[in-house]
Amino acid sequence: MNTPSLQQRFGELRSNKLFELFVVAVIIGSALLVGAKTYELHPLTQQAITWLDRLVTLIFLAEISIRFLGEEQKRHFFRNGWNVFDTLIVVVSLIPIDNSDMALVARLVRVFRVLRMVSIIPELRLLLNSLLKALPQLGYVLLLMFIIFYIYAAMGSTLFEHINEELWGDVSIALLTLFRVMTFEDWTDVMYETMVVYPLSWVYYITFIFFTAFAFLNMVIGIVVNVMNDEHAKVLKQKAKEAHEPTLVDLYAKLEAMEAQLQRQAGAENASRRDSLSG
Amino acid sequence: MNTPSLQQRFGELRSNKLFELFVVAVIIGSALLVGAKTYELHPLTQQAITWLDRLVTLIFLAEISIRFLGEEQKRHFFRNGWNVFDTLIVVVSLIPIDNSDMALVARLVRVFRVLRMVSIIPELRLLLNSLLKALPQLGYVLLLMFIIFYIYAAMGSTLFEHINEELWGDVSIALLTLFRVMTFEDWTDVMYETMVVYPLSWVYYITFIFFTAFAFLNMVIGIVVNVMNDEHAKVLKQKAKEAHEPTLVDLYAKLEAMEAQLQRQAGAENASRRDSLSG
Amino acid sequence: MNTPSLQQRFGELRSNKLFELFVVAVIIGSALLVGAKTYELHPLTQQAITWLDRLVTLIFLAEISIRFLGEEQKRHFFRNGWNVFDTLIVVVSLIPIDNSDMALVARLVRVFRVLRMVSIIPELRLLLNSLLKALPQLGYVLLLMFIIFYIYAAMGSTLFEHINEELWGDVSIALLTLFRVMTFEDWTDVMYETMVVYPLSWVYYITFIFFTAFAFLNMVIGIVVNVMNDEHAKVLKQKAKEAHEPTLVDLYAKLEAMEAQLQRQAGAENASRRDSLSG
Amino acid sequence: MNTPSLQQRFGELRSNKLFELFVVAVIIGSALLVGAKTYELHPLTQQAITWLDRLVTLIFLAEISIRFLGEEQKRHFFRNGWNVFDTLIVVVSLIPIDNSDMALVARLVRVFRVLRMVSIIPELRLLLNSLLKALPQLGYVLLLMFIIFYIYAAMGSTLFEHINEELWGDVSIALLTLFRVMTFEDWTDVMYETMVVYPLSWVYYITFIFFTAFAFLNMVIGIVVNVMNDEHAKVLKQKAKEAHEPTLVDLYAKLEAMEAQLQRQAGAENASRRDSLSG
Repeated sequence: MNTPSLQQRFGELRSNKLFELFVVAVIIGSALLVGAKTYELHPLTQQAITWLDRLVTLIFLAEISIRFLGEEQKRHFFRNGWNVFDTLIVVVSLIPIDNSDMALVARLVRVFRVLRMVSIIPELRLLLNSLLKALPQLGYVLLLMFIIFYIYAAMGSTLFEHINEELWGDVSIALLTLFRVMTFEDWTDVMYETMVVYPLSWVYYITFIFFTAFAFLNMVIGIVVNVMNDEHAKVLKQKAKEAHEPTLVDLYAKLEAMEAQLQRQAGAENASRRDSLSG
Repeated sequence: MNTPSLQQRFGELRSNKLFELFVVAVIIGSALLVGAKTYELHPLTQQAITWLDRLVTLIFLAEISIRFLGEEQKRHFFRNGWNVFDTLIVVVSLIPIDNSDMALVARLVRVFRVLRMVSIIPELRLLLNSLLKALPQLGYVLLLMFIIFYIYAAMGSTLFEHINEELWGDVSIALLTLFRVMTFEDWTDVMYETMVVYPLSWVYYITFIFFTAFAFLNMVIGIVVNVMNDEHAKVLKQKAKEAHEPTLVDLYAKLEAMEAQLQRQAGAENASRRDSLSG
Repeated sequence: MNTPSLQQRFGELRSNKLFELFVVAVIIGSALLVGAKTYELHPLTQQAITWLDRLVTLIFLAEISIRFLGEEQKRHFFRNGWNVFDTLIVVVSLIPIDNSDMALVARLVRVFRVLRMVSIIPELRLLLNSLLKALPQLGYVLLLMFIIFYIYAAMGSTLFEHINEELWGDVSIALLTLFRVMTFEDWTDVMYETMVVYPLSWVYYITFIFFTAFAFLNMVIGIVVNVMNDEHAKVLKQKAKEAHEPTLVDLYAKLEAMEAQLQRQAGAENASRRDSLSG
Repeated sequence: MNTPSLQQRFGELRSNKLFELFVVAVIIGSALLVGAKTYELHPLTQQAITWLDRLVTLIFLAEISIRFLGEEQKRHFFRNGWNVFDTLIVVVSLIPIDNSDMALVARLVRVFRVLRMVSIIPELRLLLNSLLKALPQLGYVLLLMFIIFYIYAAMGSTLFEHINEELWGDVSIALLTLFRVMTFEDWTDVMYETMVVYPLSWVYYITFIFFTAFAFLNMVIGIVVNVMNDEHAKVLKQKAKEAHEPTLVDLYAKLEAMEAQLQRQAGAENASRRDSLSG
């Protein structure tokens, strides 16, 4: 009779407001530690940071354990992607690293602890989910954009390779150069260089900028329209719920009922009139 | 019986149109003085500006006094944030400064007198309020954006510190560098430098640009949707008020009333028919 | 009996489709002449262009005369801003210029002939009018933006004048520098220069970018909302006109009429019943 | 009795899902070949790519033939622009090229094979069509923008030609320079250069940026409003179809029918009353 009560106690602790606030505070602390390590520090301070870092790892380990033990059905725990992410971050932090080569990787893993902020705060999780949900709808626009990029990159690395090997060496470098042109970052330097050899190469850049700007614009408008429609549908649903406002369908049904009654009434009257006439 | 009449007279003066225009003119004058001081001037002109500056301070002092004395309930005066701001600006201007170190601060305080324009013109005050009101709604998007920035800054200052101390020295310098990358300002220079050491570091920049652009887009759309909904609700309310247009609820109520009457009528007729039959 | 027929004949010519097309062709020709003059040309070609230019001036003079003589009420002619603009352009072209100093001005005036395109094509005139109409609605946002610019420019030319005279020399140069910062054009060069003296001056730039970006965003949204509302109102009006669709007000009126009839009917029946009972 | 069955068999093959997937795979393969050719390769690999390239050409030839033979009415085949495009790409690939001058052109033609992706995937074709459909609606805004560009280019090449021949040499170079200014790419370098000679030339750049930004904004808003209206109309139509919801017109018609019945009833009653009174 010991285990179930422990599970319940952990389950309660898990949804405790104070416990959540404490975990958020520890995550912020761990973020500050990550930031502090990028400064040049006194050896003593560095020592302190290393110890604090271990303390954070321990607290995270305890927290994940509590969450896991507090779960009623253990199998459901790892179905939640955020739980898997949290566990991974903690487990990787536990691996002891002495090798200096792996020290860099270990430091980078600690950076991702800041992402636990998103896994803990429900509003941020919601925001990220809605961002990710908008992506696949735009899949075809992104594919079209990639096709435009690929064609221009293949053309660019065929035509301009001998002009500047560093910018147009092969198709992947050309893709990067075109991304740079799309952000307008020193794109004229790239253009003027090729215009010395091909005076008409401005056509290549101007058309590329037009096509990508147009596709990008289309994507933005696509997102705006989607969001607007969702929002609109939500507002309509909520309005209908709140006001118990009848729809046109309700009004039409009511009218038909009234018409039927009128006809029945008229029928009854006619019958009674006939009765009284024949009576 | 002197004080109340004085308060009333000041209260009237305060809401006088000419008085308001005069104050706006003085503020514009003070703005021009602030601008004039940045030019190299003849000593005589500088003398004149100093005197004009003192005159502006005196007029502002008189104006604030009139406003304060014109207020019916003195305690309410400082509840208005703009009144506190105005008083502060005037009081700080009054402090005599001889020390050359403080002269710079005194000049900067005079610059903020231009902001009194916002506190005087109601339309600008409204605009600023609506801008500030939109901010907290976007709090979580800004938090998400800061988390993205922080993670990339921590990674950047860990990986690229030895490449360029000035751009990636510590986490705060890296944040500034990333803001620069987000504005596309010579971001390829930053990238090409790190690509010499880590040829794959373009992934770092491209993903960062995608994430921040996406979050930014989300923020903009969030504001647009909010503004649209507010506007839509306003339009609907106004339309309903102006046209006295009946709602679907009104129509439904009317139909129900008519149905009830029809039923009553039918009942009455049946009764009369029964009467006449039994009669 | 000669003059009125002449006025009518010119009036007809004025609205002739072929005449309009001819004028548009002449304007395009004059635009090409303006462009051609910017190239280095053979003296003979230059001679030809000068003669063609005079021909264009003559045709324009003839066209304006026809328009003026074709106008029924001469006083109305100059009430139209576009007519005044057209006449001005033609009159200025007629002034003979020998002085080489004025030759540049004369060439620039000829450039503005291209704008006659807008005054001739109604769709462009409509577009420009709608653009100009949107401006005053945004007056207060532009004022707020100018106040932000002015405050930052005054601060910048006070604080950074001794760092770079060319960028922060006085308030007007500082305004230009801030416009450059707003377009993100090498803004980090400007910032890094001042950060050497004031390490915290990044706050100045980041806050400026945030404020202007926010005000700009607000302006864009303002225009979008305005355009949308106009469009929405137009659509609603047109829909109502086309479909002769009854409004909720019509439906309500109809229901009230029916209810009144039901009551009259009920009253009549009751009366007849009373009659038949008493009869 | 052989030919028709062949046409039918090809027609079936044409709309076979597996056949389509195979063609898409070959197109992706041809895109990768195009990309691979931009890298420096071992002669053996280059040989292999040349053979694979010929294989792709053969498969494309076979595919187009199947499509053509599978078409019921041969004349309709070339009415579809995408079919013409596909055939052209394949036919040009078939031309044997030995001359080294034409080799570059042949490589570029192979790049456009990637565009066959758009002609095969219906969603991309739809997307491109909707993009192209939006263009003519914006024709007048683009014309207005070109007029602005042309006037500024003519002015620029008249005023600034002697300052920098490379940027303002003639009207076409000036147009390119102005496009650069519009993208904010090192526009201050261009401006500072002319400000040395004409200190007021900043007016030229600032007004140009304002006009183009404003016209561009107008264009974007135009697209957004168009898309929104289309979307709105689509949603309304679909809603009406799905829910079989009665419109206000239906409701009004129903009310009129009921009113007519009430009047007939009232008439009948009055008649019967008169009958019974006179009876």
